[in-house]
Amino acid sequence: MRITHVEARDIRFPTSKMLDGSDAVNVDPDYSAAYVTLHTDQDGLQGNGLAFTCGRGTEIVVTMIRAFAPLVEGRTIDEIREDMLGFWRRLTSDSQMRWLGPEKGVIHLATAAITNAVWDLLARCDEKPLWQYLLDMPVETLVACIEFRYVTDLITPEEATYMLRSLEPSRASRLHHLRKNGYPAYTTSAGWLGYSDEKLRNLCREGVAQGWTRFKQKVGANIEDDRRRARIIREEIGKDGILMMDANQYWDVDEAIRHMNRLREFDPYWIEEPTSPDDVLGHAAIATALRPIRVATGEHAQNRVLFKQFLQADAIGACQIDACRLGGVNEVLAVLLMAAKCGVPVCPHAGGVGLCEYVQHLSIFDYVAVSGSLEHRVLEYVDHLHEHFVHPVTIRDGNYVAPETPGYSIEMHPTSLDRYEYPGGAAWKQ
Amino acid sequence: MRITHVEARDIRFPTSKMLDGSDAVNVDPDYSAAYVTLHTDQDGLQGNGLAFTCGRGTEIVVTMIRAFAPLVEGRTIDEIREDMLGFWRRLTSDSQMRWLGPEKGVIHLATAAITNAVWDLLARCDEKPLWQYLLDMPVETLVACIEFRYVTDLITPEEATYMLRSLEPSRASRLHHLRKNGYPAYTTSAGWLGYSDEKLRNLCREGVAQGWTRFKQKVGANIEDDRRRARIIREEIGKDGILMMDANQYWDVDEAIRHMNRLREFDPYWIEEPTSPDDVLGHAAIATALRPIRVATGEHAQNRVLFKQFLQADAIGACQIDACRLGGVNEVLAVLLMAAKCGVPVCPHAGGVGLCEYVQHLSIFDYVAVSGSLEHRVLEYVDHLHEHFVHPVTIRDGNYVAPETPGYSIEMHPTSLDRYEYPGGAAWKQ
Repeated sequence: MRITHVEARDIRFPTSKMLDGSDAVNVDPDYSAAYVTLHTDQDGLQGNGLAFTCGRGTEIVVTMIRAFAPLVEGRTIDEIREDMLGFWRRLTSDSQMRWLGPEKGVIHLATAAITNAVWDLLARCDEKPLWQYLLDMPVETLVACIEFRYVTDLITPEEATYMLRSLEPSRASRLHHLRKNGYPAYTTSAGWLGYSDEKLRNLCREGVAQGWTRFKQKVGANIEDDRRRARIIREEIGKDGILMMDANQYWDVDEAIRHMNRLREFDPYWIEEPTSPDDVLGHAAIATALRPIRVATGEHAQNRVLFKQFLQADAIGACQIDACRLGGVNEVLAVLLMAAKCGVPVCPHAGGVGLCEYVQHLSIFDYVAVSGSLEHRVLEYVDHLHEHFVHPVTIRDGNYVAPETPGYSIEMHPTSLDRYEYPGGAAWKQ
Repeated sequence: MRITHVEARDIRFPTSKMLDGSDAVNVDPDYSAAYVTLHTDQDGLQGNGLAFTCGRGTEIVVTMIRAFAPLVEGRTIDEIREDMLGFWRRLTSDSQMRWLGPEKGVIHLATAAITNAVWDLLARCDEKPLWQYLLDMPVETLVACIEFRYVTDLITPEEATYMLRSLEPSRASRLHHLRKNGYPAYTTSAGWLGYSDEKLRNLCREGVAQGWTRFKQKVGANIEDDRRRARIIREEIGKDGILMMDANQYWDVDEAIRHMNRLREFDPYWIEEPTSPDDVLGHAAIATALRPIRVATGEHAQNRVLFKQFLQADAIGACQIDACRLGGVNEVLAVLLMAAKCGVPVCPHAGGVGLCEYVQHLSIFDYVAVSGSLEHRVLEYVDHLHEHFVHPVTIRDGNYVAPETPGYSIEMHPTSLDRYEYPGGAAWKQ
């Protein structure tokens, strides 16, 4: 079987109309995706992947994916499966294109979309959901797929192999627990900055009624607004409810510390993206100043080298990997292993378009095979745009239910793709 | 006066044919540029800027520049001059496009090309070379152009103002020195990895005859080759010659330390890009292990936040800003000030296409107004592709001669643009 054609489409949803997803920095996102389909010469079999984007600029990632296409088209599934890391490096280490990164921003988003589509295809060939496909790979085969370049000062392939092997005997009991209880989630659906106080209170009340116990509030732009909204949420979720806060990079380092000290009384569990996502030393300073409030970041963390440093510097108490900001599964696995070695819980970034669908696979694999623990692990959930996916996530009592259909769950309905394609789709022509 | 049109062109030189510019990672670069022309409604007045690239992928930066064009077209020079930082932030903080970075990779290269073209235009309006234009700005006006966001924990606008003011009285003597002696340079023209031993020896010999005293060698792929080539260079330049080494990110952290310990005997002055350009803590570990050999990096350092950390962590002994990897003059100035505050010499990355033309302005301004020193400062020089520029750099006895023509020296000859435009130009049609 051979990949015959890499198709890339610009898919945008006009979410800015309702201020869904609004925060201190992303004031008007149109949740979007650079959407990849790998067509094959085998009838009915394809791989899908996407990179989440925020509207304008999606066309740049689409163009980048098309620039990568000649490196992918014509490859057989067998040769990719035999040297998955080699395939990944062909994208990340192209001797001319790597100048555009390396391994960050547009070029890495495109790498992620393609890489995830390949993993989707591999899992579908074996008719397994991705998390199951990863669990069923022999440990040494799996480790051979992982990019350890530039992170061997924190973790080596040998250590990774040892870690994975040592948890193998106990996998079955965790799988049993997972199938029975699901993977714990929290919701960001209530706390968007653009919502009124009344809408915020109603959404919290509804969330509590639906069984949610963990809520996230957007903060940053105005301390008095943040305090008022924190008070509303705390009133609704009670003192045992967990309240995360998310500043979306709004502050400088000293400002973050000052501002959060004025929000301490509402007992925040973590502060997410307090400052520039590139600032390892800044996050470390904030973490030291604010303990026991955890510092969380990752949705803009460009690659494994940055996560390595956040972990080395003891700068984060929650490691928020993004399934398509990191360069796809090969790189995500490296971060899961480093976080487990450092004892930092992985709590993936989700929401957006398709991120919930993606990360459920990663968190399940993390729990069963890598960290072996659910303690302090929560998976973000936002209830937007799932209707466009062929196999959307299922939430039960505030927990993700393990997906059982083959692949990476990221395929979208053809009707959605046609309707929301930018700029030609019906949704954008009106 | 108004900017009427942003033109972006994909210009590529087939340098890979001769292995000019080859190193351990960039094995076959076609030195290229995403080239910007800002057309105005005033006859004969335009601004030029470029982002250096390595061949494939240049079209992505060109596409990104075009995506930014609507934010630039129609603006008047007066409104930009009055709020230059606001103009810059309109590019870097676009609420939807910033997801593609933020402030890194493709989107930041495009920001740099446009921003530098605006500074070129401003300097031309005043009929001054850029370095002179910057020197002639009132200190408070200049400081108001600089992006301090996310770096105020290292430097504030007030400190910057104080630093610049305190050097004002002594500027004249440094200007005099500069006009008399030029700005010291070193050459990378000899040491490309793809060259034979014989070619290397001949180029070193020629370089010494031309007055060069500082040479750079590419290392990384093979320790025995590196040692043999280091011996040749040291033989030719003598024990007082300065030998830099450049690994172009080839090693992991522990590898870099091990490898460099085997090159110590050739008395390297610095090791450049020993590992991932994103790895602040890795560079700090390498710097600690290798002292007194300096660690240098910057040509892939994505933005001021990364430089801030390199400086805070005492990870670099040479700060290699890149004029168009950083987001143009507004951000470069922040890094010059941070480096001066920390006492780390700025030795810009040059070579490529137009980088020498760009950075001479920055180093001159740094010397006269910011650092006030030439100690340990050297400006890279590579003797390729200058013939395509309307006002190419001038080198005299191993020193850059201060440019005196108006603007940022980055305008290319129309005949060169037409000939090397990709894929339609005559050079690529053959």
